[in-house]
Amino acid sequence: MSDAYIIGIGMSQFGKFLNRSVKDMTREVVAEALEDAGLDRESIQAAFFANASQAAVEAQYLVPGQIALRSAGFEGIPITNIENACASASTALNSACAYVQSGQGDIALAIGTDKMNSTDRARSFAVFDGGWDVHTADESIARLREMSKDLPLPPDAEDNGGQRSVFMDVYASLARNHMNAFGITQAQIAAACAKNHTHSQHNPKAQYQNKMTVEEVLKDRPVAWPLTLAMCAPISDGAAAAIVVSEEKARQLGMGRAVRIAASVLRSGTNRKHDEFNKQITHLAANAAYEKAGLSPKDMDVAEVHDATAFAELLQVEALGFCEFGEGGRLSEEGHTTVGGRIPVNPSGGLESRGHPIGATGLAQVYELVTQLRGEAGPRQVDRARTAIAENGGGFLGYEEAAACITILQKN
Amino acid sequence: MSDAYIIGIGMSQFGKFLNRSVKDMTREVVAEALEDAGLDRESIQAAFFANASQAAVEAQYLVPGQIALRSAGFEGIPITNIENACASASTALNSACAYVQSGQGDIALAIGTDKMNSTDRARSFAVFDGGWDVHTADESIARLREMSKDLPLPPDAEDNGGQRSVFMDVYASLARNHMNAFGITQAQIAAACAKNHTHSQHNPKAQYQNKMTVEEVLKDRPVAWPLTLAMCAPISDGAAAAIVVSEEKARQLGMGRAVRIAASVLRSGTNRKHDEFNKQITHLAANAAYEKAGLSPKDMDVAEVHDATAFAELLQVEALGFCEFGEGGRLSEEGHTTVGGRIPVNPSGGLESRGHPIGATGLAQVYELVTQLRGEAGPRQVDRARTAIAENGGGFLGYEEAAACITILQKN
Repeated sequence: MSDAYIIGIGMSQFGKFLNRSVKDMTREVVAEALEDAGLDRESIQAAFFANASQAAVEAQYLVPGQIALRSAGFEGIPITNIENACASASTALNSACAYVQSGQGDIALAIGTDKMNSTDRARSFAVFDGGWDVHTADESIARLREMSKDLPLPPDAEDNGGQRSVFMDVYASLARNHMNAFGITQAQIAAACAKNHTHSQHNPKAQYQNKMTVEEVLKDRPVAWPLTLAMCAPISDGAAAAIVVSEEKARQLGMGRAVRIAASVLRSGTNRKHDEFNKQITHLAANAAYEKAGLSPKDMDVAEVHDATAFAELLQVEALGFCEFGEGGRLSEEGHTTVGGRIPVNPSGGLESRGHPIGATGLAQVYELVTQLRGEAGPRQVDRARTAIAENGGGFLGYEEAAACITILQKN
Repeated sequence: MSDAYIIGIGMSQFGKFLNRSVKDMTREVVAEALEDAGLDRESIQAAFFANASQAAVEAQYLVPGQIALRSAGFEGIPITNIENACASASTALNSACAYVQSGQGDIALAIGTDKMNSTDRARSFAVFDGGWDVHTADESIARLREMSKDLPLPPDAEDNGGQRSVFMDVYASLARNHMNAFGITQAQIAAACAKNHTHSQHNPKAQYQNKMTVEEVLKDRPVAWPLTLAMCAPISDGAAAAIVVSEEKARQLGMGRAVRIAASVLRSGTNRKHDEFNKQITHLAANAAYEKAGLSPKDMDVAEVHDATAFAELLQVEALGFCEFGEGGRLSEEGHTTVGGRIPVNPSGGLESRGHPIGATGLAQVYELVTQLRGEAGPRQVDRARTAIAENGGGFLGYEEAAACITILQKN
């Protein structure tokens, strides 16, 4: 099997943009990716369009990709709508790889666009409720709450009464479980969060670009103990894209700024018990990706991980093998995941700061890593970054994410 | 590029089943396809899950495939949710082909499951409204109505006032336009419809198995002139699946009942004018598929086409090159598309009779054609069928379908 390469990337400003449409953001990132690749629109042979919110937010239940890409001038080419919840965009990249590796074509567009903000806030939150099995969501949530029942909440850390996604309750339960199992602390979670908010001050496309200290994170509005508002990814609008080509086409176009996709591995969740950390979907997917790429965690120079909450980052750095299970908090607190540290994580600011338009996030991670491998990340550049890993997860099935996609990228 | 092969198929009874779930139907067709292929569940390396209705009907906005396939015992493997409106299932087959052709794996499951019937009828109809660009749907519908404004409806053929999909209005407009351009008649449309309903009496999995005459079709309740109720695909629940393997794996498992996928070609719509019939998406996709397979329309022994209405069948047999543009009505009226005729079309009964659970239809077509090529279609068997074509279309962008997928299958 030959490798696939990324030769062009695009990403919009992430944020809350009630006046921007899916079409509008799609047009912007397509134009940017084409310009970056030095290609015209006619050279794109197929498109894989990721979107997760338009059904819930706008009642656009069908063919969002054809509609958005038509407005960007695409006609006639194969367009496939891909959805894997918050892992939709990395799945679209995975499908684009299969397309060019299959020989069906040489040049494919992988794109994720999502507009989650709405004047009707209930619609924005409905997206998350659709990430569960709607027939058994209550049962799943009850199971997750059961996990943390022996860890009573501090009296001042109860539900803040505001509208929020049940996902944050889930992450809070998982965090309390991890605190119980390994002794990680709220301050360690806050350290990861402060690090991400601090990274994002150098990312002009991030939703939030304000530096935060650990103290500021801890003092922020409580969402569900131990999580404060700063530790939770916001509701976001945005788009990101990558142009994927076959090895032959990459050679033909010149390898200059091309980045090799050393592995793109998709997995779905298992019925593991909550304390079987070595059966985590991310861990299994990462191990498969390392094996495919012939690399190990030690070879990674920079990572983008799916920090839907700051706690998730701790969980994922463990699952990716950057430290032992239970050591993610320490890794963060000691600064090893900060730009300049041993394994910089989320130099973009992560989902917490860059923002999380769920159908676009996987490709926003790839945008950041390609930028890093090209040495074009400016003040947030990771020195001598040659190998990078992205971890993108989506949906919940009981204890477990429904989809995880790991992408390993290498500089030529 | 090596070919992909189908080695196992499954299909549920199609119909209105308020007591059946997406999970339930998924489990059934997965078990049938595995048994047909002589494989166990563990041999499936990846799954491509098509569904188009669960967001609108059940508010299951995300990861329907992981949820349904988990209930069928699948864990850990890559699962990708695919949506291309009514062409979702053939697109899932297209993705499964790319997967095995890319070398990412050898054995993939393509499956489409849809449950459209609901105790709340408005939800069933909402699915179709999501097949338009929701921001410009009114404009598109106005354009379509404009097309047929010079063809006044007969006084007794106005809107029947009942709840129905705007899609039927669209098809009626397209039909009146075709009548105007080529002189096709309502009786010719009825001939295609009666033929399909007559074919389906021999299909035990069809939603309707009652034979109809041309007279009965014409006397059925008017929907939108020239379409009567019998000419319109019903709202359906059902599932269909195919197991797709690489050429190497097919040889290894034994080619006995394997069917070769000679072409799987996906295309999206163009901005053609309504009378530019040679720029129709189906026509362009079919020509690309014939070229890829090294075959012509004359080589086709049997076809399944997307007769969301009986008129659409006439349009599609023209687009597939079985006759000249405008001759589809005559082809049907003269019996050439009946089993026993020159090019039997929709031996299964088509969408009109077999039923149309929109995310499953593309694979139901493939189920029928594989059955035909194996010579296992019983009283509806097409003699000496060695080469078959399926045409599956989905969504509307103004005048044009959003997605069309053509599959050409060949007996070994």
